[in-house]
Amino acid sequence: MKEYDLIVIGSGPAGYVAAIRAGQLGMSTAIVEKETIGGMCLNWGCIPSKTLMESAKLFARIEKAATFGIDGIDKKALSFNWKKAVARKSRIVTRLVKGVEFLLKKNGVDTITGEAKITEANSVEVGEDKYTAKNILIATGSRPDRSAFGAVDQSKVVELDELFVLESVPETFLVYGGNAMACETATMFRMIGKKVTIVAPDKTIIGFLDGSLSKYIVDKLTKLGIKVYFESGISKDADGGVYAGDDFIECEKIINCSDRTAILPDISGIDIALENGFVKINEFMQSSVGNIYAVGDVTGQITAHTGSAQGNCAVNHMAGIKVPFDYTKSPMNIYLDPEVASVGITEEALKEKGIEYRVGEFPMSVNGKAMAEGVSEGFVKILADAKYGEVVGVHIVAPGATDMIAEAVAIMKLEGTLEDVGTIVHAHPTVSEAILEAGFKAADHALHM
Amino acid sequence: MKEYDLIVIGSGPAGYVAAIRAGQLGMSTAIVEKETIGGMCLNWGCIPSKTLMESAKLFARIEKAATFGIDGIDKKALSFNWKKAVARKSRIVTRLVKGVEFLLKKNGVDTITGEAKITEANSVEVGEDKYTAKNILIATGSRPDRSAFGAVDQSKVVELDELFVLESVPETFLVYGGNAMACETATMFRMIGKKVTIVAPDKTIIGFLDGSLSKYIVDKLTKLGIKVYFESGISKDADGGVYAGDDFIECEKIINCSDRTAILPDISGIDIALENGFVKINEFMQSSVGNIYAVGDVTGQITAHTGSAQGNCAVNHMAGIKVPFDYTKSPMNIYLDPEVASVGITEEALKEKGIEYRVGEFPMSVNGKAMAEGVSEGFVKILADAKYGEVVGVHIVAPGATDMIAEAVAIMKLEGTLEDVGTIVHAHPTVSEAILEAGFKAADHALHM
Repeated sequence: MKEYDLIVIGSGPAGYVAAIRAGQLGMSTAIVEKETIGGMCLNWGCIPSKTLMESAKLFARIEKAATFGIDGIDKKALSFNWKKAVARKSRIVTRLVKGVEFLLKKNGVDTITGEAKITEANSVEVGEDKYTAKNILIATGSRPDRSAFGAVDQSKVVELDELFVLESVPETFLVYGGNAMACETATMFRMIGKKVTIVAPDKTIIGFLDGSLSKYIVDKLTKLGIKVYFESGISKDADGGVYAGDDFIECEKIINCSDRTAILPDISGIDIALENGFVKINEFMQSSVGNIYAVGDVTGQITAHTGSAQGNCAVNHMAGIKVPFDYTKSPMNIYLDPEVASVGITEEALKEKGIEYRVGEFPMSVNGKAMAEGVSEGFVKILADAKYGEVVGVHIVAPGATDMIAEAVAIMKLEGTLEDVGTIVHAHPTVSEAILEAGFKAADHALHM
Repeated sequence: MKEYDLIVIGSGPAGYVAAIRAGQLGMSTAIVEKETIGGMCLNWGCIPSKTLMESAKLFARIEKAATFGIDGIDKKALSFNWKKAVARKSRIVTRLVKGVEFLLKKNGVDTITGEAKITEANSVEVGEDKYTAKNILIATGSRPDRSAFGAVDQSKVVELDELFVLESVPETFLVYGGNAMACETATMFRMIGKKVTIVAPDKTIIGFLDGSLSKYIVDKLTKLGIKVYFESGISKDADGGVYAGDDFIECEKIINCSDRTAILPDISGIDIALENGFVKINEFMQSSVGNIYAVGDVTGQITAHTGSAQGNCAVNHMAGIKVPFDYTKSPMNIYLDPEVASVGITEEALKEKGIEYRVGEFPMSVNGKAMAEGVSEGFVKILADAKYGEVVGVHIVAPGATDMIAEAVAIMKLEGTLEDVGTIVHAHPTVSEAILEAGFKAADHALHM
């Protein structure tokens, strides 16, 4: 029976980051994976979807090439080759997976292939093999819930990754879900010319976002020609036709972008507390069994980077470094065109809590670099505490927003104020200048508005 | 005779930002412009060059479209339509100029058209009109030096903006200069298929940059097929052929990207101290005549945003807010493909000063988002003080580097350390994750390397 300081179960970005960190700190570490190193994020989620979105963005940009001064594009001849785009995706995924495998090896982490069962607080079984570990980290992720499709033909319902193996994709889709994955998936397929309908179970799209972002996203989907149904389920008529409410929805496939449920390892032999089906954890990622930690989607989180940060936090705690993770300063990106990004509190939450605040918003339509890039829709919105001007929320729609948000996170992490925002020299011409301008506006010094 | 609190001379980004700021602070303000509101930056510099670069980037990207899964591009049919690209540039410039005109008006700034002469410390003449002002701000900018072309046919030498009026552009160019403008101009023309040679007067390209960036840029230019001559002048033979050293350079036009010299207003009536031809200023932008300030290129600066920040600093000083401007935290962007950005001290300067430091570098070749975008060359390099880990320099080559640098400036402005960099949650997948990784590496915790 092999003994480890730490056994990590699941090798997505929550698990593999924790395992590498543990290796670096000198812990004897193993990581258990039943499918492919990298988990959902690398193999079927973040990386594949963003890679395909970049193909879709280029496809859309090429259609506008003439306005950039590029002659010789025959728009009628243009077509999106799904198989080639997926092949590109696969090349990138393979390279990244190999990278993670290399890093695990380099940092002395053993990889165990199979499905893990936690039999006791210090015991893990994988198939016939038994292991002991001082600490166990559950990072087994999540999958989209499948409960919304009871009424319809199950062969019509696909997970996104099932489309990757097809030679070509259908012409009509129903995307079920109201989260970031639903919006990204619908947008990507629409941008490559497919007919797409979204059916969202709730009355909003990504309802936890600042209202300005949710509204922007719904407007954008509509502008792209995607019909969005809210608070709707899916039903079928006698002939098998798919309906949202009373409306017939033309769709060859239904893509499952439902909110996610935890994938738990076999924990039948041990009493680990759950909450809404996810592993319940404290601020150091400990489950109700002190030496069993859990991080990532299995704890109800939805972003890869939050999982990674939780993983670091958990391993640090095992090593005696007790720094709780601050969820309020973890950004959320949505890969549309332009991109959407957000960190911190929303204006609605400030109002609801009765907190006095300042707000500044600056539109991309007057930002020189955004205009140069040909993507001048969107805005930056900054929220700050009224008394000290401390930045508490930043919400962005802009080309490159997913990288721009890093500045906002840095400012918030370092407790920067609107005065700081105004004295951080923003290079010209950059899209980020809009952060400066929104900051000025929040401080009542709108410069370019 | 009209009296003002402030007369600003020159309406580029240094001047117009100062004028707007002064208007917002309630100063009666006028701005004098002899040509077009917006100055070099808006009309002939930053914005036009970046807009054309975006056209060139799209042109280059379209040539790679097949790898993204886009069928139907006939590469042989593709051509770059200079006139259309310039027309797009002009539409954007017009919109931005109108924007600045609107802002000046909105903030109560009078616009005076003509050439200003400073006759006394409080007196300005424009043509026949005389004005008095409590303070005067010189923001008259700069122009590329023209002294390098004595040997060649002057009709061959053009300023970049002279090419904007042509129906089409020549097929062969010599770009003279070793600065950012030279690199950007040469790259843009090369990317749209022109034959380009750079003749640089010094032994390096943009020599003040971190060595890693200068080296990258020279390698990149070479890879693009641009031959670079160092420490070279331009001569001609008896037939008028252009030479760099002994080599004949095929070029229909020579683009003047020489380093810049100040454009001074008429100050013959007053004794304002100069230094190397630029207006000498103190930390509050005051010239040797206390109520006459100077900002921007006329003081020897080379970026629009430094000019703007100086303008704010000067107007603040007039209003009694005495905060000197910190030049060490002003970024420098170079718009190549991918982009180059830099802030703070270089590794060479740290060595020369004998300062102990930490350094971390992370390559774009393993960054998931950069790979998804199809631009995975480049790196992030972070320099930090050895004792406290305070970040003192960040140097980036990456897609979107010109916006990524904003995070680095924010961290440096807020005196962030490598520990802070490691705990700022960087969203996944983003190009900015490379900042986190370089920070880890500098702190000896390389995660993804």
